[in-house]
Amino acid sequence: MPDPKSPYLIGVDLGGTKILAGLFDPGFNCIGQMKLSTKAERGPEGVIERIARCVHDAVDECDLSIKQVRGVGVGAPGAVNTAEGRVIFAPNLGWKDVPLKKQLEKELDLPVFVDNDCKLHALGVFEAEYHAKPRNLIGIFLGTGIGAGIFIDGKPYTGFNGTAGEIGHMVLDVNGPECGCGNRGCFEALASRRAIFRAIQHGVKNGQETVLTEMLGPDLADLRSGDLRKAIRRGDKFVEKIIDQAAEYTGIACGNLINLFNPERIVLGGGVIEQLENDMLPIIDKVARKHALPGTAKGIEIVASRLGDDAGITGGAVLVARETK
Amino acid sequence: MPDPKSPYLIGVDLGGTKILAGLFDPGFNCIGQMKLSTKAERGPEGVIERIARCVHDAVDECDLSIKQVRGVGVGAPGAVNTAEGRVIFAPNLGWKDVPLKKQLEKELDLPVFVDNDCKLHALGVFEAEYHAKPRNLIGIFLGTGIGAGIFIDGKPYTGFNGTAGEIGHMVLDVNGPECGCGNRGCFEALASRRAIFRAIQHGVKNGQETVLTEMLGPDLADLRSGDLRKAIRRGDKFVEKIIDQAAEYTGIACGNLINLFNPERIVLGGGVIEQLENDMLPIIDKVARKHALPGTAKGIEIVASRLGDDAGITGGAVLVARETK
Repeated sequence: MPDPKSPYLIGVDLGGTKILAGLFDPGFNCIGQMKLSTKAERGPEGVIERIARCVHDAVDECDLSIKQVRGVGVGAPGAVNTAEGRVIFAPNLGWKDVPLKKQLEKELDLPVFVDNDCKLHALGVFEAEYHAKPRNLIGIFLGTGIGAGIFIDGKPYTGFNGTAGEIGHMVLDVNGPECGCGNRGCFEALASRRAIFRAIQHGVKNGQETVLTEMLGPDLADLRSGDLRKAIRRGDKFVEKIIDQAAEYTGIACGNLINLFNPERIVLGGGVIEQLENDMLPIIDKVARKHALPGTAKGIEIVASRLGDDAGITGGAVLVARETK
Repeated sequence: MPDPKSPYLIGVDLGGTKILAGLFDPGFNCIGQMKLSTKAERGPEGVIERIARCVHDAVDECDLSIKQVRGVGVGAPGAVNTAEGRVIFAPNLGWKDVPLKKQLEKELDLPVFVDNDCKLHALGVFEAEYHAKPRNLIGIFLGTGIGAGIFIDGKPYTGFNGTAGEIGHMVLDVNGPECGCGNRGCFEALASRRAIFRAIQHGVKNGQETVLTEMLGPDLADLRSGDLRKAIRRGDKFVEKIIDQAAEYTGIACGNLINLFNPERIVLGGGVIEQLENDMLPIIDKVARKHALPGTAKGIEIVASRLGDDAGITGGAVLVARETK
């Protein structure tokens, strides 16, 4: 049996390509972590077995025993029923209605808590990076998709159906590109990694020259956010323009959020920002303030998270601490 | 001196063209009301004197004395510093930094409370129409401009600078028409009465035929929201199309709000909705649900307020009740 008073907490960030597990002390310092590929093609059972292995390996890496852990908090890339710990829909994993909490608890013999990955990213930022000080905070995460976590009066804000914060599907351009959700011009269809990659591939197909083809070959195999940064450093104006556009859309989205929520702080994170912060943040900040009504953005900060890739696992650990208090 | 235990409350809706004052009992039933034109051209002092006269007339209409009133709540069409009761900026009145609370208290010898008009509309709807039951509610008001009041966990949500809910300046179409705020494609530039009138006038200038010119003459003098309803009833396809478009944009805005806030209820009000509810609401509802992510709109209601023009004065009375409790 796990020790409910144990100080050790585990956070897991379950992504479409990799599983990251981290072991944390009560101050949310990461003592050790482990990474495994997801292998979503093996189906939910195969993936859940790999999550369990990743957790065991992270614990062993720290010379601890699984019995010394208080619980595991998992962020899943999709819609989650948090009460039941059930992943309702996670397109990047090909999951529909997977009882993740129940199955992982069986594998690990530990309490498991599940939430949406972006909400856990935001929870990690809010609690571990900012120590819950800005009472109204929005964390935005730009990766394959775009998600957010909203804090109002120091608490995660979830709304009537528990789905608040689906910022990726805020329409910014009614006549814009099609989004996976079936509508047009959603923020996610304009500024996510997928949208950026699509714009680059479209350009290359139409004969656009870019150093990316030199770096990765004509089909841009294995294109990553970091490659975009390298291309810009090498003076690639095409890539720079596409990143500038994504930053402008992100700025408009932040302007909308300031007009609507008037949060004290907007924190940006996720792979795209982590790699391209210096290129994007000044544009995002400028465009957001131009779109906020005069006076409304006063004192509001738009910053990048320092947690980087660890935001998700940190948020998982915070979730365990909150749920087992 | 006014009686702090008096049951009577006064709400004032201060608009660009008219001042409406209503006297309410503690159950927020309107006992009597009075209307005066604003005459904004006379400047703040002239207008404030007219507000005072309107309040006195409403009290007299009910055979009561001003001393029997607990206080006055005023909704002003612009940005308000609620702590000081100061109107920071109200373009429709030509006001900048007017100490409305202070001056009106001097005129009336009664406690005065001031807030943004749309926020008071929403407060009236939330408290008097829905008895504070849906804990998360957004009230949207489509008039000359577009504003909103947001309730989270049963309380008005105001944000870091007190300006949350500036829904009229949520960008929906980055390449859309210019907005008074200097940006493009704001909700207000697409679906407010001003945007609708502009689209109609633009069409007429370009030779578009409409029964409106028969009704009002070629320059469409004194065009009102009610005329649009009449034109549609008379089979005017041009006006119908413009109203359908405004309803579609309003539906997209509501879809964004469901994705972001996931409120239990969205209540629509204001002159445009009051006149065109039957034409617009079915489109708004359908488009909003199409833009909300699957599952997120479940159980959420999008309805029109029944308070009509009285929402603002009702909200003013609610404000007095809350502030003098």
